[in-house]
Amino acid sequence: MLLKNNIKLIKSILGNNKVLTSKEELYCYAQDSTNSGEDCVLPDCVVFVESIEEVQEILKLANKNKIPVVCRGAGTNMVAACTCPFGGIVLNFSRMNKVLEFNPINMTMRVQPGVILNDIKELALKEGLFYPPDPSNYKVSTIGGSIAQSSSGAKSLKYGTTKDYILSLKVVLADGTLVTLGANTIKDAVGYHLNQLIVGSEGTLAIVVEAELKLIPKPETRSVITAYFNSIEEAMQASTEILKSKILPSTIDFMDSNSIKTVENFCAIGLDTSKEALLIIELEGFESSMEYQKNIVLKVLKNNRAEKFEIASDEIEIEKIWTSRRSSFAATARLAPDVVSDDIIVPRDRLAELVIGCKNICKENHLDVCIVGHVGDGNIHPQVALDLNNDDKFKSYLSAKSQMYKLAMKLGGTISAEHGVGKEKVSYIENVLDKNSILIMKQIKKIFDPNNILNPGKIFK
Amino acid sequence: MLLKNNIKLIKSILGNNKVLTSKEELYCYAQDSTNSGEDCVLPDCVVFVESIEEVQEILKLANKNKIPVVCRGAGTNMVAACTCPFGGIVLNFSRMNKVLEFNPINMTMRVQPGVILNDIKELALKEGLFYPPDPSNYKVSTIGGSIAQSSSGAKSLKYGTTKDYILSLKVVLADGTLVTLGANTIKDAVGYHLNQLIVGSEGTLAIVVEAELKLIPKPETRSVITAYFNSIEEAMQASTEILKSKILPSTIDFMDSNSIKTVENFCAIGLDTSKEALLIIELEGFESSMEYQKNIVLKVLKNNRAEKFEIASDEIEIEKIWTSRRSSFAATARLAPDVVSDDIIVPRDRLAELVIGCKNICKENHLDVCIVGHVGDGNIHPQVALDLNNDDKFKSYLSAKSQMYKLAMKLGGTISAEHGVGKEKVSYIENVLDKNSILIMKQIKKIFDPNNILNPGKIFK
Repeated sequence: MLLKNNIKLIKSILGNNKVLTSKEELYCYAQDSTNSGEDCVLPDCVVFVESIEEVQEILKLANKNKIPVVCRGAGTNMVAACTCPFGGIVLNFSRMNKVLEFNPINMTMRVQPGVILNDIKELALKEGLFYPPDPSNYKVSTIGGSIAQSSSGAKSLKYGTTKDYILSLKVVLADGTLVTLGANTIKDAVGYHLNQLIVGSEGTLAIVVEAELKLIPKPETRSVITAYFNSIEEAMQASTEILKSKILPSTIDFMDSNSIKTVENFCAIGLDTSKEALLIIELEGFESSMEYQKNIVLKVLKNNRAEKFEIASDEIEIEKIWTSRRSSFAATARLAPDVVSDDIIVPRDRLAELVIGCKNICKENHLDVCIVGHVGDGNIHPQVALDLNNDDKFKSYLSAKSQMYKLAMKLGGTISAEHGVGKEKVSYIENVLDKNSILIMKQIKKIFDPNNILNPGKIFK
Repeated sequence: MLLKNNIKLIKSILGNNKVLTSKEELYCYAQDSTNSGEDCVLPDCVVFVESIEEVQEILKLANKNKIPVVCRGAGTNMVAACTCPFGGIVLNFSRMNKVLEFNPINMTMRVQPGVILNDIKELALKEGLFYPPDPSNYKVSTIGGSIAQSSSGAKSLKYGTTKDYILSLKVVLADGTLVTLGANTIKDAVGYHLNQLIVGSEGTLAIVVEAELKLIPKPETRSVITAYFNSIEEAMQASTEILKSKILPSTIDFMDSNSIKTVENFCAIGLDTSKEALLIIELEGFESSMEYQKNIVLKVLKNNRAEKFEIASDEIEIEKIWTSRRSSFAATARLAPDVVSDDIIVPRDRLAELVIGCKNICKENHLDVCIVGHVGDGNIHPQVALDLNNDDKFKSYLSAKSQMYKLAMKLGGTISAEHGVGKEKVSYIENVLDKNSILIMKQIKKIFDPNNILNPGKIFK
């Protein structure tokens, strides 16, 4: 619990207009986008930082007084990584949202943590450049959160994840020290890759206050092929055979029968609700190679008994397809009072087993599930619709979740591909990670944050 | 100094035929491929490990007795990362050279550390797959060394560096504990990215005994364009304008006038020795996009006053070009008894200043230098030919080296892009890295290796 004189001190550092303390205001920060049925805990205050110096000042005070500090961008996190189980200070980065430098020749952009991913993408595009990571919430989510959670999205199949686009980072340590990690060059082989250690550390090691991003030339054009299948196995087989055919789509995405039906009910765009699976394959590259790529993909699809192909090459049509795919969460949310989106991944050759297994697990537990995912990566998001206030349903859900994680592990996979661990999956990591690697992680945490003030209760118990 | 009874113990663990102790044999391990003028220090013994268990046994013994342990693959390192300044045990991984699993569907390969990079590439190719990192010594160098040094090569412009192709790692800690880091999936957001921390840690944190590699589909075809320039500035301008034109070559490589002359003297392949600069641009992709890509690149080259373009699309011709480029080190070695190859990098827009600056620095210090590099990345290798036994020359070289590093730093760059720090650059890192980041690195080193037995004297003093 934060003492009153600390709040006074914070206000004296930042000014009254940057600090929220009333219950109604704090209530908005008790949760992020996670739907977990957890109790809400309010932070003691929310501060809108506007400079690195302000972050440093707050951290000094928090560290001295052992006050928890939780960073927040747009609060779109799905694993309760932005919640405040021990109260404390929420650092709200929405005002540190400036692009500090954009150098098209170096193909780099230096940004503050609160910049929205879509703003980075659009600015890059003005010079024919491309920032690939595209979590489905990229129109609202921030780069700071993206770095913290190691997020990726549909296009990681071809372009990799956030970590592949981070050059240097400026971070503030728990004691308020500002440190630069990495170099602003495309390659860097001097010392340990501490910048890579920060990516995905979920705000538990240090607070990112500036990032130098790598950009790449924008692909000239794109086409999207959609194809239906009468079985999950055939869809997954087609996905791996596309890759075997030397075509590397930017995305091979997937919707199961329940997702198809749910999305079609939601936005009536003419999906075929009689099918077991839909693949959405996005090809990017030079206009001159597009026909060739499409022909190979179509051939593979036909060989794998796909039906009802459609090819969209027009940007409006393509956006319509992706909007419907991205609406699957919202659509599923209409099936029940709550929807929980999970995130698991296995090696590609075990994916059919995972999808079918998850469907069966949910069926046995009498749960509605819509499964979508980035199947080119082996990554799926089972979205379970339920009423979290119904105790029996909640118990069934917890049981199903645990069984799905066990299955992913059994198939050689892991329990998070792009959402992170947060508070939501904290009780599972001992079953996932080598116990000695957890010991090392905890010791590293101690170096960075000896008083455990940075996002306590996340990743580790 | 290793006590006799320890050597006896090692022999009892491994058997006599895996341990070298005679002076003549040890002499081969006193140096790696670095030419630094440093004194040779012999290890106390060299052990040919054949299994993870053997590595663990040796580490337990070494840690208990505080004996330095230095790993060695092919010994191709350029920054004295494989030397033994404090004697101790060399772990020779040349017998742990097996591909343990190759899964073309998952596009992954599980390898032991002693596997030669070229063997990985060739095996992948049999299934139409591609392992991109290509340090110029890839025909002899090993994956273990490549992971330790975070090495890359010409193709990193398009495909990234070693770190981008590492999924999970099995490592042995200083106390002999075996730990698995990361997951075998394409994405992984569970806990800190310790696998990325190990990449580039130069054998100072843990010993990699197994690696799961990510592969990608092999590009269908390639073409190489060579073009000459009458000034460095024009060549560098052309390089950045190619990228601005939305073409991402797999490589934009460079040779300065001295390199052109030296290589032509060495292998007489018809280079134009009257020019200031040569760019070698490799384009990869679909056959159907190749004409388009070539036309754009040629247009950019013409606009930047390039001369004498040649286009090679035949694999034999292409290999001839790369063989001549890769021979620049051997060619430079004929100019004087010794040649020292350095490795510096700056943001692309400062590259002309770096190249011209390095030429001037060497001229002022009366040193012969041939500059080659991966200019698409902003990375150059000044190769200085000299007699290291000539004290005056050696002093001049040290002065020039320090000035080149200062210049790279001043231009916003750093002192190693792909070779690492090793023992060679250890005295410079305090000028390069944030002092607080060095403090963190040293604390992390202590977690992994409290007795400082793993490659002591490397990266840090």
